[in-house]
Amino acid sequence: MIRPTEDQQYYELTSPTALPKASGFLWNNQMMIHMNCRGYAVAQFMQPEPAKYSYAPNLEAKTFMQPEQPYYAHHPGRFLFIKDEESGYIFSAPYEPTRQVPDKFVFAAGKHDIVWTLGHWDLRIQMTLTLPRDHAAELWSIKVTNTGSRKRKISLYPYFSVGYMSWMNQSGEYVDELGAIVCSAVTPYQKVQDYPKIKTLKDKTYLLAEKKPSAWEVSQEAFEGEGGIMRPSALESGTLACGDARYEMPTAVMQYRIQPEAGEEQEYRFVFGPAKDEAEIADIRERYFGFDGEKGTGEGTESGSEEHQAYSEYGFDAAARDYAAYVAEGRGSLTIDTPDKDLDNFVNHWLPRQMYYHGVTNRLSTDPQTRNYLQDHMGMSYIDPRSTRNAFLTALSQQRPDGSMPDGIVLYEGAELKYINQVPHTDHCVWLPVCLITYLDETNDYALLDEEVTYAGGEKSGTVFEHIDLAVQWLIGDRDERGLNYINQGDWCDPMNMVGYKGRGVSGWLTIATAYSCLVWADICERSGRSSEAADYRQQAEEINGAVNRHLWDGDWYARGITDDGVPFGISADEEGRIFINPQGWSLLSGAADEDKKERLIRSVAEQLESPYGVEKLAPSYTAMREDVGRVTQKHPGSAENGAVYNHAAAFYIYALYAVGEKENAYRLLRKMLPGADEADIRQRGQLPVFIPNYYRGAYRQFPRTAGRSSQLFNTGTVPWVYRCLIDGLFGVQGTPDGLRVSPQLPAEWNEVSVTRTFRGAEFRIAIKREDGVSETEVYVGGERIEGGVIRDVAEGGTYAVEVKLPL
Amino acid sequence: MIRPTEDQQYYELTSPTALPKASGFLWNNQMMIHMNCRGYAVAQFMQPEPAKYSYAPNLEAKTFMQPEQPYYAHHPGRFLFIKDEESGYIFSAPYEPTRQVPDKFVFAAGKHDIVWTLGHWDLRIQMTLTLPRDHAAELWSIKVTNTGSRKRKISLYPYFSVGYMSWMNQSGEYVDELGAIVCSAVTPYQKVQDYPKIKTLKDKTYLLAEKKPSAWEVSQEAFEGEGGIMRPSALESGTLACGDARYEMPTAVMQYRIQPEAGEEQEYRFVFGPAKDEAEIADIRERYFGFDGEKGTGEGTESGSEEHQAYSEYGFDAAARDYAAYVAEGRGSLTIDTPDKDLDNFVNHWLPRQMYYHGVTNRLSTDPQTRNYLQDHMGMSYIDPRSTRNAFLTALSQQRPDGSMPDGIVLYEGAELKYINQVPHTDHCVWLPVCLITYLDETNDYALLDEEVTYAGGEKSGTVFEHIDLAVQWLIGDRDERGLNYINQGDWCDPMNMVGYKGRGVSGWLTIATAYSCLVWADICERSGRSSEAADYRQQAEEINGAVNRHLWDGDWYARGITDDGVPFGISADEEGRIFINPQGWSLLSGAADEDKKERLIRSVAEQLESPYGVEKLAPSYTAMREDVGRVTQKHPGSAENGAVYNHAAAFYIYALYAVGEKENAYRLLRKMLPGADEADIRQRGQLPVFIPNYYRGAYRQFPRTAGRSSQLFNTGTVPWVYRCLIDGLFGVQGTPDGLRVSPQLPAEWNEVSVTRTFRGAEFRIAIKREDGVSETEVYVGGERIEGGVIRDVAEGGTYAVEVKLPL
Repeated sequence: MIRPTEDQQYYELTSPTALPKASGFLWNNQMMIHMNCRGYAVAQFMQPEPAKYSYAPNLEAKTFMQPEQPYYAHHPGRFLFIKDEESGYIFSAPYEPTRQVPDKFVFAAGKHDIVWTLGHWDLRIQMTLTLPRDHAAELWSIKVTNTGSRKRKISLYPYFSVGYMSWMNQSGEYVDELGAIVCSAVTPYQKVQDYPKIKTLKDKTYLLAEKKPSAWEVSQEAFEGEGGIMRPSALESGTLACGDARYEMPTAVMQYRIQPEAGEEQEYRFVFGPAKDEAEIADIRERYFGFDGEKGTGEGTESGSEEHQAYSEYGFDAAARDYAAYVAEGRGSLTIDTPDKDLDNFVNHWLPRQMYYHGVTNRLSTDPQTRNYLQDHMGMSYIDPRSTRNAFLTALSQQRPDGSMPDGIVLYEGAELKYINQVPHTDHCVWLPVCLITYLDETNDYALLDEEVTYAGGEKSGTVFEHIDLAVQWLIGDRDERGLNYINQGDWCDPMNMVGYKGRGVSGWLTIATAYSCLVWADICERSGRSSEAADYRQQAEEINGAVNRHLWDGDWYARGITDDGVPFGISADEEGRIFINPQGWSLLSGAADEDKKERLIRSVAEQLESPYGVEKLAPSYTAMREDVGRVTQKHPGSAENGAVYNHAAAFYIYALYAVGEKENAYRLLRKMLPGADEADIRQRGQLPVFIPNYYRGAYRQFPRTAGRSSQLFNTGTVPWVYRCLIDGLFGVQGTPDGLRVSPQLPAEWNEVSVTRTFRGAEFRIAIKREDGVSETEVYVGGERIEGGVIRDVAEGGTYAVEVKLPL
Repeated sequence: MIRPTEDQQYYELTSPTALPKASGFLWNNQMMIHMNCRGYAVAQFMQPEPAKYSYAPNLEAKTFMQPEQPYYAHHPGRFLFIKDEESGYIFSAPYEPTRQVPDKFVFAAGKHDIVWTLGHWDLRIQMTLTLPRDHAAELWSIKVTNTGSRKRKISLYPYFSVGYMSWMNQSGEYVDELGAIVCSAVTPYQKVQDYPKIKTLKDKTYLLAEKKPSAWEVSQEAFEGEGGIMRPSALESGTLACGDARYEMPTAVMQYRIQPEAGEEQEYRFVFGPAKDEAEIADIRERYFGFDGEKGTGEGTESGSEEHQAYSEYGFDAAARDYAAYVAEGRGSLTIDTPDKDLDNFVNHWLPRQMYYHGVTNRLSTDPQTRNYLQDHMGMSYIDPRSTRNAFLTALSQQRPDGSMPDGIVLYEGAELKYINQVPHTDHCVWLPVCLITYLDETNDYALLDEEVTYAGGEKSGTVFEHIDLAVQWLIGDRDERGLNYINQGDWCDPMNMVGYKGRGVSGWLTIATAYSCLVWADICERSGRSSEAADYRQQAEEINGAVNRHLWDGDWYARGITDDGVPFGISADEEGRIFINPQGWSLLSGAADEDKKERLIRSVAEQLESPYGVEKLAPSYTAMREDVGRVTQKHPGSAENGAVYNHAAAFYIYALYAVGEKENAYRLLRKMLPGADEADIRQRGQLPVFIPNYYRGAYRQFPRTAGRSSQLFNTGTVPWVYRCLIDGLFGVQGTPDGLRVSPQLPAEWNEVSVTRTFRGAEFRIAIKREDGVSETEVYVGGERIEGGVIRDVAEGGTYAVEVKLPL
């Protein structure tokens, strides 16, 4: 099996399987390579710190998630292997890892659960995942039905990957009293000062089974054998070996050997998740299945007292019902019925769900970026305005006494500003008035402005009005002698970090956004009885717009900024990054663009930025580092901020188009946010329309092969802006201090639409129709025409039948 | 393909392959799960920072390398797919990823190259990897021979994994002018202050082919298709699609369609590695293959001028020869011929190679731990003593003016002390005298003691003697009122970090090591004419030994230490961590243990720590955190410092056994460092005897299933100590100021041994034999008996025939 060569220059191994980790290594003074006998390698070189050139597929440790990138064979997953005991045929649900295409396959992405239904080999497999409301755990139901005409002998192997937990300590075993596979680890650390934190972590992963399995395996390597993940060797045996993992990579796989009669259905339920210790796992068993030594580890549901039976049913199913109720709380305030059924489906169901997700989770961050936090809660104005109110109070309590906002909002005591929040950005104050107006439109809660809030540090205090006023003043003050806003190491565009890091560079977009903030804040001042302040801010906005037009207008569009060295960029003279979307749309909002500029810039956007998948953030995408612009130019062309159809920016633009009545342009671009309608488009995007991704790949003119691909990432500030586009723009059902203003901007192709709008406790059932002989929008309530289209004195609990007539 | 359900509660996808990344997501206020339609999942929960419970197999980002853990399907590797074009049969060399067992398989781990030879389907495949001497690159030769009797039609697909390079930017394409696949990335970063560092990195990975391929693929996903890594779909087509990767995970696979005649051999050569830019890749092509547009990208070697042909041959082959010469420079100073041929092979070939690797690379670190740096260079005393001398001067130039040593030695300007080097350890001064004595024994270079070296900070300066004297004084001074050495957050045992972090806990081992350091330093003082200092240090050692015996002797062995709270540990009253190896062996060296204690502790070690795979570091292994001992108790039982056969510690013990003449015990344990001799042992360890791993899994009495497994990690301070065991102990050929002392301690089972020892420029050919009538070791040179066994006045360039007679 092993032997030295005669000349003793080599040691030989004559089997690839006997010592699967046997290896040799080579090195020189620049590198090292550890070469495994089966072909695997770990190599690194010095520059001078160690680096790799052949990389692992380890998405996970490098980033939050990168679902656009390919999955790899051992990616974490939840699978069910099925073996026909008579023929030995093996397949897996839902598809990975064996990749046998079933006869029938349905993946149903639901609001409160996800369901697969497969048909294969006369078996029907249904796998359902849901979550509890308040607890980190997965609730799985697996139903298997014998759809054939004879009794079957099969084995089911639910396989829940655990993976590489820790180099310090990882192990796992089946714990009979818990009816669970319990895997244990110690999160790696080195410094004693980290121990108190590490000590509290939930370092166990468990797979808890309602029914006791026939057998199990906890060692990933023992499970796979030479068959590998695509055809694990352990499945070849009659029963799994009931092995454990001792400083071996754990897995959680169980086996149920069953013989269902024709037509018989069996259900298996599992809980999978993290825990601190075995006591917690016992509690979880109790909570979902009831705890009963006999029942918990007995064969199925026959054993166990009726009481426990009832409890068990109650626990698991009640949790699922409770979670459905929780998700249902995330209703929006708009239900539509238009000629576009795909849009209806998305707007009525998935869009508010996605907004709600952002609002209630803060993207699972302990320190959300300030701009994300405010915009995510802007969306909550339509779902749960109290949460928006609280978010404003929280954010303002972290505002610095000079009016500036921190880069992130700390939500947990002891949380720290991390990653991107350690990079100074200058735009955060913009979002205070811009997001607040939506809350006020929805609620008319101008009393919020009088709430007293302390500033960061706790010494100074002021009303919400004073806070935001100071923020707007800060924005106005943070400008150079030309009247343009400093960008420092970024504005809304995080990676635009080298335009102004020396302290001189300015942001065109941010200057325009400051002007718009002044206008919005002026409206709020006006509406809260502060007319003279309102006039001052409008004057301010006009002056800033003047500076913008003096320094940033490039002839057909606005420049994106001017670098530390005084070089304007995002202009026609640039070969890459010639035009950016954000200054264009916001200049429509701020009023900087007059009629001529508006036409030119809209044309320029259509010509240079519009693609079949939406409007790109910039074009052409940068293909090489531009050191006076920064990190954005290093991202892959067409990805993320470097010229993707970055939906957040696209939504700003669409919102601006509605603001200036460009309803056809607006609707065309809005519709491109969803995959479809044709199959080629769906395939290219590769995504279900259950969320809007943060981007679709751009650089359509440079790399058409990849353009349109969804990033698959559902964290995005896009969604509240899309909702505002619908409310304030497309369907025109925006709140005002006086009531509901009805002024739809339907695309020409729509003749008839109905909308249900909930607003300040009332319900408006609005029928919109194009009619002959109508020359402008006419709004009727109870047959009576409403001049100006504002339905006043909205009665809480009331129902309004509204009729809207539009010109043909 | 996709459709909403009638109740609009779900969106359905009816194919697992049409939108492979399509997904849904669920969340609650504690967690989020992103569920892919094929079963993959990304889930995280809050505690309060985001954490995982189902992990990726991402060894790489979490650690340097963990070769004991299982490889995963997409682990980086270098493979060759072979397709028989006529039958469609596909297999891969060396074994992964297709895992077809070939008819013949030989993996030959060589000193300067690694070679696989496979026979399968009438083809002979030879893959050879070597490195250049001074450059981070892999040099690959692939030879394919038609061993059948008819012409064949086959395709060869060298497949070099590139993997997930970066979320910021990753791409790849075949560059015709370079004859190379070039993959590009930007190392992820967020802060502008990191840019200058990032900017200089070699972020390209290239596969450079001598012969132009028929086709290629650069997209990992396009290459694999639904077939997956085990049977890539792209191999089903006649030719690869010549695709590129655009923000897609790149790979480097080429195709050569060939039709070898019976008996014909073809060779393909490649260079694979990192580069800064394409100019560098062009230089590399020039260096190894000669650069010629026609030749470089022409079909094979027919084209290209003869001049280039010659250059090409010269470049690649010369680099391989040069590398062989470089490795050959790592010769040790001992060649043995004993009854144990496996030991001979290891000692004559692999052991000095492993020492040399440590000495010339410093484990590919820019800031090696001080203790590693000194011990690794102790080993270089036998190979290249000038390097040892320089290492001492480097280390001492970073010594603090108070005599203490930093935790790591910074080797590059701008490098920082990282990871474990940010944790304060108290043992580093020990290694100065202990490692220096080996250098002095080998070289007699006592002049080194007079070299002037500045201290860290550059203000104070002193001779090497003064430096080390101060270090020993620091050790003596860093003791408590009982005379025991403080441990702070660790001694030799890195993760023993909570014994003394409050400032009171002491290390038993370190106290004993301080005594031994005093003895060694006393010898050096004596030999450099400082007799009174020598006497003082011997007195010091005796006093420290007294304290050790007063406070640490537990009845049958020495305690490992006393915690901050005054609790002795590593004692018979402990249920776990009852006995530690280090205090036992070092007490033999320091003289703390008298004859009675010696017998007791050797017996205790044999009973409690010895296993079939060597002597364990502690036993029983801790199975739960002990908060007054620390992180070592959290490592998995039997792994690493928590009770593995930690060979570094085992080597100390064996060295100590030789020091007190326990030659049978010593040899038995020494031999257990190598796998074998029987096949069951080799399988259990799972490693070739081409290096000693840092540990074999321990906890033999607790977890026998896993005990003995090699960690597969070849970075270890073990090897210079094993060499010292051979030189000072087993073969007894140690240097002294006067010459070479010959006093072998052969095990009883050996009757005859011959040894060639190079020493101070001379060669000693030593024949050792047991003879009847001999009562003590007799040493003869040229037939003349040498009293005391010390061969004096060694003449550089001389050859000595030495005969040694031992009692039967």
